[in-house]
Amino acid sequence: MLFVVRMDVDIPRDLDASTREDVVAREKAYSQELQRSGEWAHIWRVVGKYSNISIFDVESNARLHEILSGLPLFPFMHIEVTALTTHPSAI
Amino acid sequence: MLFVVRMDVDIPRDLDASTREDVVAREKAYSQELQRSGEWAHIWRVVGKYSNISIFDVESNARLHEILSGLPLFPFMHIEVTALTTHPSAI
Amino acid sequence: MLFVVRMDVDIPRDLDASTREDVVAREKAYSQELQRSGEWAHIWRVVGKYSNISIFDVESNARLHEILSGLPLFPFMHIEVTALTTHPSAI
Amino acid sequence: MLFVVRMDVDIPRDLDASTREDVVAREKAYSQELQRSGEWAHIWRVVGKYSNISIFDVESNARLHEILSGLPLFPFMHIEVTALTTHPSAI
Amino acid sequence: MLFVVRMDVDIPRDLDASTREDVVAREKAYSQELQRSGEWAHIWRVVGKYSNISIFDVESNARLHEILSGLPLFPFMHIEVTALTTHPSAI
Amino acid sequence: MLFVVRMDVDIPRDLDASTREDVVAREKAYSQELQRSGEWAHIWRVVGKYSNISIFDVESNARLHEILSGLPLFPFMHIEVTALTTHPSAI
Amino acid sequence: MLFVVRMDVDIPRDLDASTREDVVAREKAYSQELQRSGEWAHIWRVVGKYSNISIFDVESNARLHEILSGLPLFPFMHIEVTALTTHPSAI
Amino acid sequence: MLFVVRMDVDIPRDLDASTREDVVAREKAYSQELQRSGEWAHIWRVVGKYSNISIFDVESNARLHEILSGLPLFPFMHIEVTALTTHPSAI
Amino acid sequence: MLFVVRMDVDIPRDLDASTREDVVAREKAYSQELQRSGEWAHIWRVVGKYSNISIFDVESNARLHEILSGLPLFPFMHIEVTALTTHPSAI
Amino acid sequence: MLFVVRMDVDIPRDLDASTREDVVAREKAYSQELQRSGEWAHIWRVVGKYSNISIFDVESNARLHEILSGLPLFPFMHIEVTALTTHPSAI
Repeated sequence: MLFVVRMDVDIPRDLDASTREDVVAREKAYSQELQRSGEWAHIWRVVGKYSNISIFDVESNARLHEILSGLPLFPFMHIEVTALTTHPSAI
Repeated sequence: MLFVVRMDVDIPRDLDASTREDVVAREKAYSQELQRSGEWAHIWRVVGKYSNISIFDVESNARLHEILSGLPLFPFMHIEVTALTTHPSAI
Repeated sequence: MLFVVRMDVDIPRDLDASTREDVVAREKAYSQELQRSGEWAHIWRVVGKYSNISIFDVESNARLHEILSGLPLFPFMHIEVTALTTHPSAI
Repeated sequence: MLFVVRMDVDIPRDLDASTREDVVAREKAYSQELQRSGEWAHIWRVVGKYSNISIFDVESNARLHEILSGLPLFPFMHIEVTALTTHPSAI
Repeated sequence: MLFVVRMDVDIPRDLDASTREDVVAREKAYSQELQRSGEWAHIWRVVGKYSNISIFDVESNARLHEILSGLPLFPFMHIEVTALTTHPSAI
Repeated sequence: MLFVVRMDVDIPRDLDASTREDVVAREKAYSQELQRSGEWAHIWRVVGKYSNISIFDVESNARLHEILSGLPLFPFMHIEVTALTTHPSAI
Repeated sequence: MLFVVRMDVDIPRDLDASTREDVVAREKAYSQELQRSGEWAHIWRVVGKYSNISIFDVESNARLHEILSGLPLFPFMHIEVTALTTHPSAI
Repeated sequence: MLFVVRMDVDIPRDLDASTREDVVAREKAYSQELQRSGEWAHIWRVVGKYSNISIFDVESNARLHEILSGLPLFPFMHIEVTALTTHPSAI
Repeated sequence: MLFVVRMDVDIPRDLDASTREDVVAREKAYSQELQRSGEWAHIWRVVGKYSNISIFDVESNARLHEILSGLPLFPFMHIEVTALTTHPSAI
Repeated sequence: MLFVVRMDVDIPRDLDASTREDVVAREKAYSQELQRSGEWAHIWRVVGKYSNISIFDVESNARLHEILSGLPLFPFMHIEVTALTTHPSAI
């Protein structure tokens, strides 16, 4: 099941540098693991922003929430989820 | 170059049925030709709406505008374009 | 899989009376059939509006879109879909 | 009397961990007690957010405000209330 | 039970004059009957607009919806309902 | 002269408890004095929010601003003022 | 008593030309009479729009509504009213 | 050249009292000097807010920016500028 | 004096084809004459929309309004004007 | 390839003065270097705001993101990017 998800990141300035580095590194690893498993189908950077637009292909809403709420950057993100389905014109 | 494009379609009720069928058929053919060429990389339906979210991979802004303004449904669409680029966490 | 869906209805004034009656009657039958099957889990009227807030329990995004785009009033509705999941505090 | 209520939670980062744990635990107990009594008829998690959408079935506006303003997380929530009533198509 | 209701009226220009006069006259009679019964507790005009802000004192959400959806001008109004309760500072 | 005023209160978390108690107590006294004088004609709590909707009956805009800017909670409020007048359907 | 009023004009395209000319001429005469009486203290054009921003100096909300609802272009305007008062820094 | 400017002031709570008094006093003097020179043609208080609506009559955009960015309260203001011109109905 | 102007065009579907062609042709000629004179300094197409973003360099607000309100497509445009000035970092 | 970019700057008050001076100086140098190279084609100040509107002429979305995310003030800016192309009426 497909969803487009936009994540806007806003890490607080007063987060200490090592915590910041750590959370960003863990975010990357977490994302890449899910990309490898195929659930995080695409991730693109929005030009000019600390934001991404991603496509998730998951078995359920519950799984999508599990993935998103487990993001190391979850506490510092605004996330918008839009449910997608196959388009009749898609080849 | 990548762009995410959202198209919300609103065909006027008073468009006569044959014109409507024709424009919808031409839209589908137009979209599929561009999907085959690789410029219209993805198209998904937004659940509950006569809308799609698409990814375009084009050589320039000019080419993207040429494609979008040439859509048979262009006069009946609200279109939002967001420029994308590679995400550093993408595998 | 659960979704909350808000539907705001706006039937054009110039729809002739018998078509209007027919589409409203078909909408009711359509909704009730899906309520009986369990996919349209709840439907409530929003006070002061020709709108409803509904809960759908469906097997996929594709099925939800099939249901919503098949609504007899679909051409006259603005629909917003929000994906839900189980709340950890739910008993 | 029915209401749909959306609660978006934003616990300040600088709340000390034990206070946070305590308030979250009390929130859960408070919610479950009202679910058992039948006044908090449904609670769902919004996918990708620290938010819930709930249905309340209470005897009055006054009682709903008493419940909501008594939420342990009330100071850290944005709450929107929409009055509902029975839908004529509900079975 | 108290509600503040804002009604913004937009009567279509092409409504014929006698229908318009009739609906406006019926709206006034309908409103005044409910004012006399005490359910429509207050009605004020918003300066510079064809709009009113009203206070309703009704026994239930269902009754409020019955009143509002029965307004002769209902098809030509945008209505927003906000649930109220007694304020602790009210004397 | 009538105005509907909405006040949304947001007292900063780091205001010390005694100052908070004091300002809230002064707010209540201030409001009740104006209610007794008739200038603060009505005050209602918005369900689910630390907000009120009030009706003021004052001799001038200047007097309304004097009242509102003198509120002990003024620095912690977002205030919206809408000018009202008698409605032709009011009895 | 002072108010700033913004009026955005949108005359329907299908208004016949002589009615349009007439209503625009009457609007101008109406405005100028009120400017001469001092109640319509200022009127400016918003650059790039068929809109004006005006200052009214009237004895009451009721009088302001009487003036605005009597505008020949009232049915074709969106009007926003903001109550003003003397600024403490004004000389 | 005329502009209407809205300034919404939000002085941080943690600004120390003497700095606050000083900046407010300097703001007043600055405003009054420009009122005397004729460039700050009008200033009004928005009822219920720490905001003003002002009319500036300046020789250029550059001069308006110089005035606004030089406001002692500039760092604590949200400013919106709208270009005006003479209205054809002005007397 | 510099302004950035965004124009969103929406020509009504029921405008007859020859009038449409004529107004579009006159718009182009009008724009090009002002580009040649230097007052319409830049014009760009917004990708995916029947919109442009333009820079005007004019002697006054009055002149800008004269230009914009004289656009052959003015009745079919939504226009937003933002005043600009020299940036201190511009070379 | 052309883009219009709006940058709204909001430097936190608690940034120490020397860091602030340094970042602003580096921002200016960075901008001017890109102006000299031709990629940052125009930069204008928005009147009344700590904001700019700029035109970029870059070879790709990736390059634009590289430029914008490298801005010394990037962490303190809200940036909006709009893709542009040649306008058919441009001379």
